This record gives sequence, structure tokens and C-alpha cells, in this order.
Amino acid sequence: MTQKFDFHVTATDGAARTGAIHTPRGEIRTPAFMPVGTAATVKAMLPENVRATGADILLGNTYHLMLRPTAERVDRLGGLHRFMNWDRPILTDSGGFQVMSLAALRKLTEEGVRFKSHIDGSSHFLTPERSMEIQRLLGSDIVMCFDECPALPATDAEVAKSMQLSMRWAQRSRDAFGDRPGHALFGIQQGGVTRELREESAVALRAIGFDGYAIGGLAVGEGQEAMFGVLDYAPGMLPEDKPRYLMGVGKPDDIVGAVERGVDMMDCVLPSRSGRTGQAFTRRGVVNLRNARHMDDPRPLDEDCTCPACRSYSRAYLHHVLRSQEIIASMLLTWHNLHYYQELMAGLRGAISEGNLSGFVGAFHAQRAEGDIEPL
Amino acid sequence: MTQKFDFHVTATDGAARTGAIHTPRGEIRTPAFMPVGTAATVKAMLPENVRATGADILLGNTYHLMLRPTAERVDRLGGLHRFMNWDRPILTDSGGFQVMSLAALRKLTEEGVRFKSHIDGSSHFLTPERSMEIQRLLGSDIVMCFDECPALPATDAEVAKSMQLSMRWAQRSRDAFGDRPGHALFGIQQGGVTRELREESAVALRAIGFDGYAIGGLAVGEGQEAMFGVLDYAPGMLPEDKPRYLMGVGKPDDIVGAVERGVDMMDCVLPSRSGRTGQAFTRRGVVNLRNARHMDDPRPLDEDCTCPACRSYSRAYLHHVLRSQEIIASMLLTWHNLHYYQELMAGLRGAISEGNLSGFVGAFHAQRAEGDIEPL
Repeated sequence: MTQKFDFHVTATDGAARTGAIHTPRGEIRTPAFMPVGTAATVKAMLPENVRATGADILLGNTYHLMLRPTAERVDRLGGLHRFMNWDRPILTDSGGFQVMSLAALRKLTEEGVRFKSHIDGSSHFLTPERSMEIQRLLGSDIVMCFDECPALPATDAEVAKSMQLSMRWAQRSRDAFGDRPGHALFGIQQGGVTRELREESAVALRAIGFDGYAIGGLAVGEGQEAMFGVLDYAPGMLPEDKPRYLMGVGKPDDIVGAVERGVDMMDCVLPSRSGRTGQAFTRRGVVNLRNARHMDDPRPLDEDCTCPACRSYSRAYLHHVLRSQEIIASMLLTWHNLHYYQELMAGLRGAISEGNLSGFVGAFHAQRAEGDIEPL
Repeated sequence: MTQKFDFHVTATDGAARTGAIHTPRGEIRTPAFMPVGTAATVKAMLPENVRATGADILLGNTYHLMLRPTAERVDRLGGLHRFMNWDRPILTDSGGFQVMSLAALRKLTEEGVRFKSHIDGSSHFLTPERSMEIQRLLGSDIVMCFDECPALPATDAEVAKSMQLSMRWAQRSRDAFGDRPGHALFGIQQGGVTRELREESAVALRAIGFDGYAIGGLAVGEGQEAMFGVLDYAPGMLPEDKPRYLMGVGKPDDIVGAVERGVDMMDCVLPSRSGRTGQAFTRRGVVNLRNARHMDDPRPLDEDCTCPACRSYSRAYLHHVLRSQEIIASMLLTWHNLHYYQELMAGLRGAISEGNLSGFVGAFHAQRAEGDIEPL
């Protein structure tokens, strides 16, 4: 594992770019969508099937894994890749975001965050140093800085104070990470929807220096318009020669808009979570398969999709197994949604390579307006 | 579908026999274990993976399917095979057994059984004629007679009365089934654990004439010893040139004992249901993966098993995903259990072919006594 972590842009189209991140565990084609494998599994999927949809990299959650099975146990068992049977790159978040969402169960200081486990109530203390240690024990390929994401709504002063704490934690994360060839550490830009704070954060991160830069603190309830507003300028504040990762995004049209604005990586639970509740993403919009109108429909979910759910089953069957709460419903619809997301990413990469992103995006929106759409 | 339904025994060893049932939808190697696909899915499995474990035939439940999605709907959608994406043989039960287990919700008459749906409380009337119609609408390859299975404990008089009703219903089932080339109708022997009643039932069924004969009313709480007691004589009462199907059996040692006594087909929810609760069947007995002793165990569930769960995951991982209630736990352990069952059937078939059943059975019991066993 002495091979270099490296990023190359091979083509651009407007602010958008396509390329690849090279890691010792394999290439990540960008723009990349990372399925979320919270507790060492992408829910309802075998990892070989996640790979078959076209995923180059998974995301694992530090918060969940540190509590169960614990980072030390994963390390003793040979690391997260071996544990969950995924030999390609894994990015782990820092635990910060999940801990912040515990609200009443946590206490924040300059040093870090003390919190109680949602599983057994046990007490834990997460700091930049401990987050780096956990992510090292997990064997993560792309490690995220430990940061704070303020709860919304927040005043500019609160967002600034939180961002400045995150920047101090970014330096501590960088110091604690050390020199680990083949492994990458990403900084996380904060600053809410305020341009000056985003700039201040970017300057601080660039001064420290990272292998990649995440745009944090978005997709937390501010709405697509406000998010795109930030994405109109935030990626340009970050180094052009490093990957830019938009955390926790999003719906298909969020992803398209983010890629148009220069984002290289994204992750979201939406395709897997929606799959479990019966919402399927298609080129013509969202299809809610729990709806009774599918009860007698012999057509596939999406006639042009080649995933197993669309190839071998009717809407009527998918409706039936959803209503019957059968596990195969989660399996098939998660597979379909991940397949759709990866196909969307492949389409975006191809369009950027061919200098036809605006044509691709136009067709994307036109198809969704055509019909058979149920709004999410 | 004009091809014949046919059964050939190719080798015997004591009372045990091996051979194949030929159907227009493919061959069923016997002795055969049929995984149960209650609601048009073998829970937590894709049908292609059920096939990969070695299953030649699935069982579907008339009771569940008639209530949801309904037999008429399955028929309109092209039949159960197409609906659930399984193109090989399907055996459907008659609905009788499940209806009987509703107890307070049903009313039995000479004509049939009136009952209320456990899903929505709606009223239904199941008769031999209606059961034949439902199984035809589903497109079942092997149709079971509509019968009554008395609740235990029951007196000899009660068992006799119930059996005689079932024999009248067997005649009505035969009449209603008609002539359907390529499709088979199986009679069901009743009579509890009383030899004279089993004989009376066998005589009645042989007089009617069926394509195969099931041994019903066992595995309902009488215990293995009593069940084997019946199996010491019951198969011999049935035609030698037709398949004999022991319904609802069973644990691995039940299956071995039944095959030794001349049974050709079996079905049971045990491998799939146990998989979902963390119980894994292995050659060395049952392993309960929820047990904390597996928490740090890097070994596979069964070192000699080639199923995906054993090939790619540690006991520690399986324990983790079970404790975390992740769907992949059900997926992997159901796959393992079905793989184990089919491997057991293949072993039994091979041993009978080679005239070495007693050697195989001896090794089967010796391995289970070796250790790493947790009793079921």
C-alpha cells in the first residue's frame, strides 16, 4: 500500500469535470456516487451486487461502526474491507455529523464531543485525534476531518463560530492523521450559505493542505435553491487539482446540479432508503410502487432499465412484495435505485467527456417532465 | 405443456430410493427438498440464487396467495412462475393446512371450510373444487388435494372421522382436477399415528389413483420418534412407482430419517426461517450466530461450505449484522441454510446411488456429535 493517492481531471465542460481518483484499492471514476454502507453493509445488498451496479467506492459511518462492532474489533478482524467483503476504496465520515444530530445526548467543547450511544447509552468522547484513530483502525482509504455542522436555523455568528472551531479541528485532524501513503485525508469546508464564511473556511483549509476537499453543511434543510446558490461559488474556492466532495447529496436532480457546478463526489442514503420504502428512481421521475395503481400492472418498473428488478419482474410483483413486507422488495428496489444512480453518474461522465453536458442535462429534465412521474 | 409427468426410480438402498420426476418445466431429482416460497418469494432470496443452491422445485402456499395477490390476479399476470421469476416446477399446497391452523377463525362443514382472512378479515370459502381452481390459476405443476389435518391432541375417533372426510375430499379434488397433461395431482394420506387409519387412507387414495402420494398429518407436534414410527410403515402402503412426499419436514436429521424410510420429497420453512433468526445448519450441528461467542471469531461459519456466507464472511461479521438487524444477515444465512439442505439432499442421492446410505448416515450423525454444536 505504498502506491500514491492521485486525482486527474481528463475533461471539463463548463464548471463540470470528469476524471479519476487513483488509489491502491482501485480507481474511482468521477463524478462518483458513493452508496452508503452505514453498519458495514449497504442495506439489502450483497457487496458484489453493489459493485455490479457500477459503484467504485462505498461510504462507511464512523459513528455507527465505533459503537458496533467497534473500530478496535474491526481492526482485529482485518479491517473494514475484509470485514464487509468489499476490496475497493472506502471513504469514512468522521462521526461528527451523526454525533451532532444526537442533540440532547451530546456535549460540545473545544476538545471534542461527549455523547451517549443510541444503542446502549454508554458514554463516548469523540475528538479529532480519536476520529483519526478510529478511521485508521477501520482501514479507511479516504478519511474525513472531524468537524462540527451546526444545527439549523443558525445565525451568521453561530455559523462562523462553528466553522472556526471546525477549522481548528481540521488542523488537529491533519496533525493526527500523519503521513499515510496511499491513504487520503479530506478537509471539510463549512460556512453555511454565507459566501464570506465559505471563503474564510476555504482559505483555512488550503493553508493546512489536504488530499481532497469536501463541501459540508449543505443538504441539511436549506433547500435546493440555496444549496445550488452556494455551489455556484464554493467549488471554485477549493483547489482545482483535488477532488471536491459534496456530502450527503442527494436526489437525482441535486446530483445533476452539483456536477454541473464542479462537484466530483457525492454520497447519499436516498437510493437505498427509498428502495426499502418502495420509491423507485427512474428517468421519468419517482415511481411509488406501494401505490395501488401498480397492483395489476404487468409492465416492468422501467422498460429501458437492465437491473434485475426491471428485467425479471412486473410492477404488480414489486407492489405485491412491498405490500407483503417481503425482504425481496427491499433487495430488488435498492438494487434498481443504485443501478439508476450509477447509470446517471456514467451518463454525466460521458456527457462531460464529450462536451455535451448541457444536452445531457436538458434531456434529463425533459424526460422527467414527460409523465409517469410522482413527485418525491 | 403436453409432455408427461413421470417418475423413475434409478436406485434403491433398503427402503430408500433415488430417481427423478420429469415435468415439462424440468427434472426434480429425488429425494428432493423443496424450499418454501409462501407469498411468491423464498424470503430474503432471489430465485436465481435459490436455484444456484440446487433446488429443482419450490413450494407455494395457496392460502397466502389466494388472499394476496389473489389467484385470479396471478393468473392475469401470466401465472405464478412468471410472477415470481421461477421457471422450474412449483408445487402448491391446497390451503387446507393453513386454514385449519386458523382455529377460531374457521368453520368446517362437509362442503368445505369458511374462514376469515388474517390480513383483512374478509370471508372466504375453500372447498376441494375451489382449491383445484386456485391451484390451476396459479399454474402449479404439482397440485395437492384439499384435505383436513386435525388439531392435536385428537382421539382415534376424531382422527378417523377427519381422515374419512379428507378421503371424500380427495375424490372431489380428483374429479375437479380433471385431465391436465403435464400437471400432477397428489393425494394426501392421513390417519395420524394409527397404523389401521393410515392403511384405510392409503387404500382409499389408491382406489382413486393419483400421480403422487403425500404423507400428511405428521410433523405437527408428535415428535420425531412417533413420526419415524409412522414412516416405518406408511411409505410402503403407497404405490412404489409414484413419488412419496412427506409434508412440512423438517430438521436435517428428520430429513435423513425420512429418506431412509422411503420418502422422495419434502418441504419445510425451517432453513429460511432459521436463517432469519440467526440459526445456521452445518454438518456439525446448529450454530446460533446471535451468541456473543462469535463476536470476535474470524473463522467462517463452516470452513468446508462453499456458499457465499461461508466463502466471504467471518462469524464475527454474521454476528454483527444479525445484532444490527441488517437485511444482509437474513440474506446470507438463508442462502447458507438452503445450500446446506440441498447439499444434504445431493449427498443422500449419491449415497443411495452407490448403495452406501448407511455409511453416509453414520458419518452424518458422527459429524454432528463432534462438537461446535448448539442444539436447536
